[in-house]
Amino acid sequence: MNKKELVNLIKRKKSFLCVGLDTDINKIPTYLLKETNPVLEFNKRIIDATIEYAVAYKPNVAFYESMGIKGMQILEKTMKYLENFPREAFTIADAKRGDIGNTSQQYAKAFLSKDNYNFDAITVAPYMGEDSVSPFLTYENKWVILLALTSNKGAFDFQFLKTENNICLYKEVLIKSKEWGNDKNMMYVVGATQAQMLENIRKIVPNNFLLVPGVGAQGGSLEEVAKYGMNKDCGLLVNASRSILYASNKEDFAEKAKEEAKTMQTEMEVLLRQRGVIE
Amino acid sequence: MNKKELVNLIKRKKSFLCVGLDTDINKIPTYLLKETNPVLEFNKRIIDATIEYAVAYKPNVAFYESMGIKGMQILEKTMKYLENFPREAFTIADAKRGDIGNTSQQYAKAFLSKDNYNFDAITVAPYMGEDSVSPFLTYENKWVILLALTSNKGAFDFQFLKTENNICLYKEVLIKSKEWGNDKNMMYVVGATQAQMLENIRKIVPNNFLLVPGVGAQGGSLEEVAKYGMNKDCGLLVNASRSILYASNKEDFAEKAKEEAKTMQTEMEVLLRQRGVIE
Repeated sequence: MNKKELVNLIKRKKSFLCVGLDTDINKIPTYLLKETNPVLEFNKRIIDATIEYAVAYKPNVAFYESMGIKGMQILEKTMKYLENFPREAFTIADAKRGDIGNTSQQYAKAFLSKDNYNFDAITVAPYMGEDSVSPFLTYENKWVILLALTSNKGAFDFQFLKTENNICLYKEVLIKSKEWGNDKNMMYVVGATQAQMLENIRKIVPNNFLLVPGVGAQGGSLEEVAKYGMNKDCGLLVNASRSILYASNKEDFAEKAKEEAKTMQTEMEVLLRQRGVIE
Repeated sequence: MNKKELVNLIKRKKSFLCVGLDTDINKIPTYLLKETNPVLEFNKRIIDATIEYAVAYKPNVAFYESMGIKGMQILEKTMKYLENFPREAFTIADAKRGDIGNTSQQYAKAFLSKDNYNFDAITVAPYMGEDSVSPFLTYENKWVILLALTSNKGAFDFQFLKTENNICLYKEVLIKSKEWGNDKNMMYVVGATQAQMLENIRKIVPNNFLLVPGVGAQGGSLEEVAKYGMNKDCGLLVNASRSILYASNKEDFAEKAKEEAKTMQTEMEVLLRQRGVIE
């Protein structure tokens, strides 16, 4: 999906909600465990329940890898299921990959190639620099979502270190990576727990989309994120995982997930209107 | 495998060779393509040919992921095959994973748990800090191999940035991570293309094992690595991938791989003796 299509999708659905499919078999409603494939069934019902309000889905690859081969089959089938909704959802492999050039090439093939999972985008770690990132940028209309400022406690270990250029490491990542890609093939992960920092981040990457985790269960404020991070194209994908997936652990889980997604979409619609992205 | 067992294995085999299983179906001898499972067959024959001279095997997970579900089955079967050689090889998932705590926990389960791939170690990226690394440290006798200084061109983008503490970022990683683990559960990736830097690295982490890529096809010198990096326990695992795997692309590939591994082991034995690790 290219940038224009993504922006149109956001305007049409009046939403910049990304649903994180961090599906954990230990957290899904127990009554689903009688299904042949409980995790896949859960994902399908969550997608059905939220597709009206969400513009993106982000399976967290770790949760599938931890189930072994079966887990990767569920990931594959979840992606196949999403094909039932053409042009309705941008798909993100939350994989945090990145290695030397010839290896990143293999990861790109695994996640972005039409012959494999065929995601629209993949999250990538920046530590190994340009040749670890650029192989992901060779797929047309596909995206790298580079880690810049993450929302976890460990972000303070290195990302906020001041460098010789008297800026934080995460800003070095933003500045340097602009040489590798552009706002049509590169987004950034920016945690919502530091929403005010979005203001300075926007000075460096005014036009790139930002993938913002940490809203919802992790407690970031959607209003703050929009205030400091939204641009004329919206430029935001705000992720919610647990607050939607596990809104209920009973038979009404899909209904409750839908309500939660609708609540977020409604708030997003107001923010998109306030900031002139939609009329 | 714990540290004592690893050190004993090195002394017994007189080798610190790690064979990188970056198996690429486009590079293996074409005559193998008639096999039901050419990549698995190739891995088995490489393992058979090199087990006498190697102390570790390091499948590069990207090369398996890029083949989809089938690739992950090959990875699983390669690990099963290595069980035929108990206490003969330390196993490393070269996966470069790392994410927020609850997600790293899932990656740790995927690669280190006895119910899954059951590797002895996994390579981990440091950008997201402590809570992205520590979940891997909860498995007994298992190891994190943290990226410090990589051997690729992109290493110069961020790893050599001087920080507010007037040291390079990769040294920040070494220093900070010593608070998270110790020399019995944490190793570091240090590229061989900068062998002299090992001298300063050893001042920070005198007792930790270092996994050194970039010797062999990538051109680093084994002698230099030993000179600056070896400690009383050896403290080194030197990886060679392409120079061994693709020593020949004909029917004699396993024989040539064996010769290449033997050549490296012979050189390693001399270095281990020179530096008093073995008598």
